[in-house]
Formats: sequence, structure tokens, C-alpha cells
Amino acid sequence: MARPVLDFWFDFASTYSYPAAMRIGSLAEAAGIDVRFRPFLLGPIFKAQGWETSPFNLYPAKGRNMWRDLERLCADLSQPFARPDPFPQNSLLAARVALAVPETKREDFCTAIFRMQFANGRRIDQPDAIGTILAGLETDPTALLAAAQTDAIKDKLRAVTAEAQRLGIFGAPTFITADGELFWGNDRLERALAWTQRGK
Amino acid sequence: MARPVLDFWFDFASTYSYPAAMRIGSLAEAAGIDVRFRPFLLGPIFKAQGWETSPFNLYPAKGRNMWRDLERLCADLSQPFARPDPFPQNSLLAARVALAVPETKREDFCTAIFRMQFANGRRIDQPDAIGTILAGLETDPTALLAAAQTDAIKDKLRAVTAEAQRLGIFGAPTFITADGELFWGNDRLERALAWTQRGK
Repeated sequence: MARPVLDFWFDFASTYSYPAAMRIGSLAEAAGIDVRFRPFLLGPIFKAQGWETSPFNLYPAKGRNMWRDLERLCADLSQPFARPDPFPQNSLLAARVALAVPETKREDFCTAIFRMQFANGRRIDQPDAIGTILAGLETDPTALLAAAQTDAIKDKLRAVTAEAQRLGIFGAPTFITADGELFWGNDRLERALAWTQRGK
Repeated sequence: MARPVLDFWFDFASTYSYPAAMRIGSLAEAAGIDVRFRPFLLGPIFKAQGWETSPFNLYPAKGRNMWRDLERLCADLSQPFARPDPFPQNSLLAARVALAVPETKREDFCTAIFRMQFANGRRIDQPDAIGTILAGLETDPTALLAAAQTDAIKDKLRAVTAEAQRLGIFGAPTFITADGELFWGNDRLERALAWTQRGK
């Protein structure tokens, strides 16, 4: 029987997508679930509701709480945490490369980008740094960075982002089950996996 | 030794404050923690950041997810759930009465208001219905409903709401520990209790 599948939607710049990305692999494996990493861009979705930047910047009290909460959360998970500067990072190039990377390497590429940003506090918009990650995954950095600039990949990312919006996604991380149930937030990951297993 | 205390801040109209109010009593008792029920008004805090109604109404995708998520959450907790109409409910009178009620009856009054709204789908702004709850708690409905309209109680609610804003509260439910740690959201209740127990 085919293993059940859970879609994991995220923007690389999204703060709570970091613990979700670090946790989902082993939790899904233990539950016998396949995860599809679905990078998209939150920017156009935020713009459509009138936000020009992250709501964590627009609403300072909410933002202060998020940074503190994320710090506590990462401490509880024994995950290193560094606050990205600037925030939000420009996630366009990383998202395009993630779509160009072979599917078998996508999860490793995505978690490496999250670690670079939130564990090591480095920018994620630099081709050199992304190239180093690609080389470490035994892929061809030059070819993939070039592929990321093609119309095919640019169009693909636009289509994926439009799909996210059509699915009702308004933030990240978001988990969507095969039967269309949407769960928003790192703190709903366990519930999304349970739903995927039980079908309710 | 005095038992540790956790402040539970909520607006009666706040959706996720319902499961928090239903859960906090027994969880805190098991952890040896005293809870202070702190009703306040979210309206003035929302207005200060430019919102004239609940963000769940302002951002429809977010709102749709909240209602579905709350429905799933209550099912998991075996709590009845009815969607209030209109939403948000006017919580002014209930909040004033909650401040007028004797402290020993406050928690029971607050959970009864939450049940009336989210379990039974009834309005919470009607003096008669609030009076019935007060009578059930063996308090004097007439005296308390009159007290709720005095300047002393009106000023108290204004002061409490100003305190919430000063503490950095931007949504509900919010839990604040004796050492000033703020936890936002029903899904942070367990973490807030653990922090209160361990002091970190």
C-alpha cells in the first residue's frame, strides 16, 4: 500500500518554518508518512492582503513575542537559534533553487538553507553560499544556480505560489493532508501527522 | 510555601480563550499552580494597531482556518463547540461583571460565560442571561449587574486593559508568569505552566 503523504508548505524566510523543517522528517518517518517539501513565497500572499512586509514587523508586540517564543522553542528542542538580520530574508533565490534541485535532494537542501539562516545567522540570498550547500549535496552548483534563473523555474515558483493562495494558505508553515485538511503553524505539525495517519 | 501563580489574560469574545479557559483549571491544579483569571478588552488594543474588528474578520483566509481549527480542537478535547453569531460578541458587560464578582466566584463565572457562548451558541451581552449565570453561582444578580455599571468598575476595566497593553499583550489568551514571561495562545498553556513550575 502506498504510504500516506503530507504536504509541507513553507517560505524559507518564515521563522516558525525552521523548527517545523527540523522536526518533520523524523516525526513523519516514525508515523510512516511521506512528506513533500513545498517551498513557496509568502510575499505575494501578504501583499494581496495589504502587507508590504512580515506581520511580525508590522505589529511590534506580536513580533517581540515571536522572537522570544522561537528562542524558547528552539531551546526546548535543543536546536541552535540565531536571529536573521535583516528580517525577513529575501527567499526568492533559495526558493527557485529548491524547485530546480532533484526531488531526492530537496529535503536536504531545504533543511540546510534553514540551518544556514536560523542556526548560523547567515543570509540566504547569496549564490556563493547556496552553491556551497549544493556542492555538499553532491549536485552541480553552477548548473542549478543557472537553472534557477530560467523562465521555466521562475514560472514554476509563480505557479506554486498561486496554488498556495488558491489552497487558502495565508502563513507558514502550513501542512495540507491528501483530503485537503489545512493545518497552520509549527505547533500543528503533530496534529497534521495524526490526521494523515487516521484520515481525520 | 506559597503556590506559584500564573496570570491568565483573556477577552470573553476571544475564540481560543474558550479551550484555554476550559483546560487551565485542572492542568494548573495538577501542577500545583494558582491561576488568576484576568478578563480585559482586546478591542482597544486592536484599535491601537488600526483594526476595527477581529483580525479573523479582517483576514478571511485566517478566519476560515481559525473556525475549522477550533472545531477540530474542541472535538479532540471532547468539548462542545458552537460558532458565535455575531462574531466577535460584545464582551463589555461580561468583562465588567467579571470584575464585580467576588474573587472566589470569578473562575466559575468566567467559564460559565465561555460555555454559554461557545458551547451553547448564545449571546453574552444580555443582562438576563448573565443574571441567570450569577444566580447559579449563588451571588446576587441584581447587585452585581448594578455594580457593573458603576464608574468604579468601568474605571477598573479600563485600568486592567491599559495594564494588558503595557505588558505587551496583543492577543488572547495570554499567560504571564510571575517573572514576566509572556506566552500567547491556547497552544502555549502547557509551556506557560511548565515555566511557572520550573521558573524557566
